[in-house]
Amino acid sequence: MSGRIFVVGLGPGAPEQRTPQADAALAQATDLIGYTPYVARVQAGPDVVRHGSDNRVELERAQHAIELALAGRTVAVVSGGDAGVFGMASAVFEAIDHGPAAWRGVDVVVIPGVSAVLAAAARLGAPLGGDFCVISLSDNLKPQAVVHKRLAAAAQAGLVMALYNPRSKARPHQLGEAFDLLRTILPGSVPVAFARAIGRPDERVILTDIAHADPEQVDMSTLVLIGCPLTHTIERANGEKWLYTARRVEKTE
Amino acid sequence: MSGRIFVVGLGPGAPEQRTPQADAALAQATDLIGYTPYVARVQAGPDVVRHGSDNRVELERAQHAIELALAGRTVAVVSGGDAGVFGMASAVFEAIDHGPAAWRGVDVVVIPGVSAVLAAAARLGAPLGGDFCVISLSDNLKPQAVVHKRLAAAAQAGLVMALYNPRSKARPHQLGEAFDLLRTILPGSVPVAFARAIGRPDERVILTDIAHADPEQVDMSTLVLIGCPLTHTIERANGEKWLYTARRVEKTE
Repeated sequence: MSGRIFVVGLGPGAPEQRTPQADAALAQATDLIGYTPYVARVQAGPDVVRHGSDNRVELERAQHAIELALAGRTVAVVSGGDAGVFGMASAVFEAIDHGPAAWRGVDVVVIPGVSAVLAAAARLGAPLGGDFCVISLSDNLKPQAVVHKRLAAAAQAGLVMALYNPRSKARPHQLGEAFDLLRTILPGSVPVAFARAIGRPDERVILTDIAHADPEQVDMSTLVLIGCPLTHTIERANGEKWLYTARRVEKTE
Repeated sequence: MSGRIFVVGLGPGAPEQRTPQADAALAQATDLIGYTPYVARVQAGPDVVRHGSDNRVELERAQHAIELALAGRTVAVVSGGDAGVFGMASAVFEAIDHGPAAWRGVDVVVIPGVSAVLAAAARLGAPLGGDFCVISLSDNLKPQAVVHKRLAAAAQAGLVMALYNPRSKARPHQLGEAFDLLRTILPGSVPVAFARAIGRPDERVILTDIAHADPEQVDMSTLVLIGCPLTHTIERANGEKWLYTARRVEKTE
């Protein structure tokens, strides 16, 4: 008898930002599959089998989940945030698409979650108030030229940008190159936010602008948010600041 | 004594897709403010005051919420999906930014939710597997030329597109014009999905492609998702289909 795969977005981190639908799917799972820190985040009984794995093995993980489900197990494939946004969902369907025909019979249910970009935006104010895009800065899966083409197109079109995977030890220079590119397009005063580990105990927020954005303040757990010319900063008496993007676009940019 | 504003994303519709954090904020509210159908969706005790209002009065609603909070009330300003994505969050901060200096003292907490685009993507498979953008097609707040510039830029850059507010009685022609524009840029086989009222009883999904996309099948409650050349359809033996966008971009497009 065939089992099932739930692809579950765990949300930003805090349990109160995870939906009851996600919790219900996790409660049915006989097996948990995912990047080890995400698997570890799930509360589960002693009979549940945890298959934690390293980063960058998404396709192998997906294939493993499909094999387990076809053997009758109920598998929760977990991602941080939303599984559809640079998480495990696309890897699962990619594995099915390129696998044996029988794999298309597997039952897959994707459970959405609060993505990192939405959690970061809420923490900052309302920086996504207008049109926006979400771009992974990693060149593991696409040429750097494509990344740059997309960043330039988004900036020229006035889209706010959320950058995932902005920096790693293996890629220390890309974020600085991205900032350099964007400085040729955007006014220097356009707000930039570094939102690290939002909703988790080690949360940290840095507000700056594109002229002064310093890649050294960013690590792999940081969501980089780059405003547009309609993104404004509100300064409060207590020293706090809010970011928001005005909804009205007056002129053709 | 000053009160507080919670800006709360209610999620796509089903209570199990709303976070406990959102429920906790709603439970504290003395006043609910928002578009009448969203206010009606919230379970609340008899002492809670419901201030439902029409569409298109976001700024007045935000000002009302600020005045109530400064008078000591605990106000939940509610939006469907995520309040930061074409919801009430930016209107609240815009009102503060343009209001009296005292308004900057109001306590505002934005609670993120599962946005309509994430719920629709999960229902369809994993169409947001690569970089993507989220664009409102409404010209209430921006010139149509800006909408077209953004659509063209996104399509040329290979971004998957999620279109909010695709069509209304007052704007019956814009979606067809958008499709016509995109047909000049994208291959006709690029998948298009119409995801209506996802997570609600009247949910409906239509899969087509950009060559055949028919605006007559779309209403204001529909999220229009337009793939990129890496978005694929998986056909299942039971007649169902999944959409996903491959993660790997091989060449510079």
